[in-house]
Amino acid sequence: MKKKANRKPVLLVALGGNALIQKGQIGTVEEQFDNLKIPMTQIARLSRDFRVIITHGNGPQVGNLLLQQECCDTVPRLPLEILVAQTQGQIGYMIESTLDEALMALGVNSQPLVSLISYVVVDKTDKAFQSPSKPVGPVFTREKASTLPYPTVKTPQGYRRVVVSPKPVTIVEKREIKTLIDTGFIVICCGGGGIPVVRAGRTFDGVDAVIDKDLASARLAEEVGVDLFIMATDVDGVALNFGKPDERYLTRVSLEESARHIIDGHFSSGAMLPKVEAAMQFVGSGGKRAVITRIDRIADAVAGSAGTEFVSD
Amino acid sequence: MKKKANRKPVLLVALGGNALIQKGQIGTVEEQFDNLKIPMTQIARLSRDFRVIITHGNGPQVGNLLLQQECCDTVPRLPLEILVAQTQGQIGYMIESTLDEALMALGVNSQPLVSLISYVVVDKTDKAFQSPSKPVGPVFTREKASTLPYPTVKTPQGYRRVVVSPKPVTIVEKREIKTLIDTGFIVICCGGGGIPVVRAGRTFDGVDAVIDKDLASARLAEEVGVDLFIMATDVDGVALNFGKPDERYLTRVSLEESARHIIDGHFSSGAMLPKVEAAMQFVGSGGKRAVITRIDRIADAVAGSAGTEFVSD
Repeated sequence: MKKKANRKPVLLVALGGNALIQKGQIGTVEEQFDNLKIPMTQIARLSRDFRVIITHGNGPQVGNLLLQQECCDTVPRLPLEILVAQTQGQIGYMIESTLDEALMALGVNSQPLVSLISYVVVDKTDKAFQSPSKPVGPVFTREKASTLPYPTVKTPQGYRRVVVSPKPVTIVEKREIKTLIDTGFIVICCGGGGIPVVRAGRTFDGVDAVIDKDLASARLAEEVGVDLFIMATDVDGVALNFGKPDERYLTRVSLEESARHIIDGHFSSGAMLPKVEAAMQFVGSGGKRAVITRIDRIADAVAGSAGTEFVSD
Repeated sequence: MKKKANRKPVLLVALGGNALIQKGQIGTVEEQFDNLKIPMTQIARLSRDFRVIITHGNGPQVGNLLLQQECCDTVPRLPLEILVAQTQGQIGYMIESTLDEALMALGVNSQPLVSLISYVVVDKTDKAFQSPSKPVGPVFTREKASTLPYPTVKTPQGYRRVVVSPKPVTIVEKREIKTLIDTGFIVICCGGGGIPVVRAGRTFDGVDAVIDKDLASARLAEEVGVDLFIMATDVDGVALNFGKPDERYLTRVSLEESARHIIDGHFSSGAMLPKVEAAMQFVGSGGKRAVITRIDRIADAVAGSAGTEFVSD
């Protein structure tokens, strides 16, 4: 542990759901541990040159916990905030232990590494609270959906619960995270976008909501000072006309170009749009580079040879 | 944040299950948050004079998660190690946010505070692996128990699953926890005794086991250097002839007296015995004082006016 503040650049890697569960998998624990080796091997190497923060999604995991609440009447049901907290424990452990192993495989035995519970303040006057929009958890039939005590929405797969997804205002542990990376720790935090709370005077009240993990990561990046922000997902980068014959991946975009592509409707709200918004927020607030890339190309994206890079001009 | 190592004495408080769920409660989230105010108000005040580490149990919470695994066939079942990790997220969040509020109520707004995922190495040759002994989770009828794919034991309430409970060998995050308390952080860690893993070369493999949280706390205390170890539970302290007409609470016991009381069979293996063993291990390895006390008397126990105190002679 250095007494002096560590001056390596700060790298934030936000891991998408497919870091743990890939398409076609049911998501056993063995599969999740195996999948994590791909990003963790890269991140272990990158930690030589960067102070590293890792954030992660929790979509499938929190969906499974919601399903268990539905089908088990013998124990008290837990609110969504607590389920998010549970996934932070579960996924934080899996990431930390896989990264620990990857570091040891490189001969690095004394790298301090912690996985933190994180909660994130949202604004109770956020307009998102008026209109639940984010589908989470299992798929129901229309008949079943009509009997549920919460709002649902029709999706291509069937009816799903929708929850509100307010914007992250501030990461409660931001000072702790800053201190930790400055003293050389690798920090895993803000899992699932953070446990959502509203502040009421001196208390924090959990709310039934899910914060977008890329937007929470962008907010964290601003609050602790991140140099390079990588969003690792299951596609090569950002495409115009995604899925169409004239699909075209972008290698480098400015803020102005990104804004135009959003207006032109190139990015779907449940998938690429929040990532592009997070990249723009990061670069717009003084961050150097944000890159959206495939999970097996994190190191290439850092080196500038993969993904879609967002720059200020 | 002080650059110099913090030299206040180190206090470790191990919170029993009743810190969250009291007798007669079903354990709603509201009840658990309310119950936590009692220890957290005391700990917030104590943090002025001590570097503080908080550990906690997870019995009822992990029991509920096990029950959900049983009654929900639609999602992959999770192994016990992952359920322990989930309870670390859940309870770590509840403790951290309640303590955050208690600190703010005292006017302390900049105390760094983190809740860490913790995993704990056990020895795969531990004799405990030959004989599952720790009852966890729900109660079954004899008929149901005979159909279950794992061992059960008859308890006064009925049949319950038994899991192995190996001794904690080392806390994986011990160096991180030491650095954190030395730089002024309050640290919440080792929830539920820690996520149990065995080390195989450069990998950590989770095991289906539950580590006793008081023994894990005693091990942590040795590894990071703790001055005062408080185990907070639902009784006033340690009693001889507990529950009998000649019941007598002890105020101060030496290692020698404790050993004699164990031989005389005063402490039940599922309840007070591991606490007494943890206290003896702590004092025997050079710790100054260990105190077993009621959860609402933590501050009095620190001051020497409550609980049963263990000293080396």
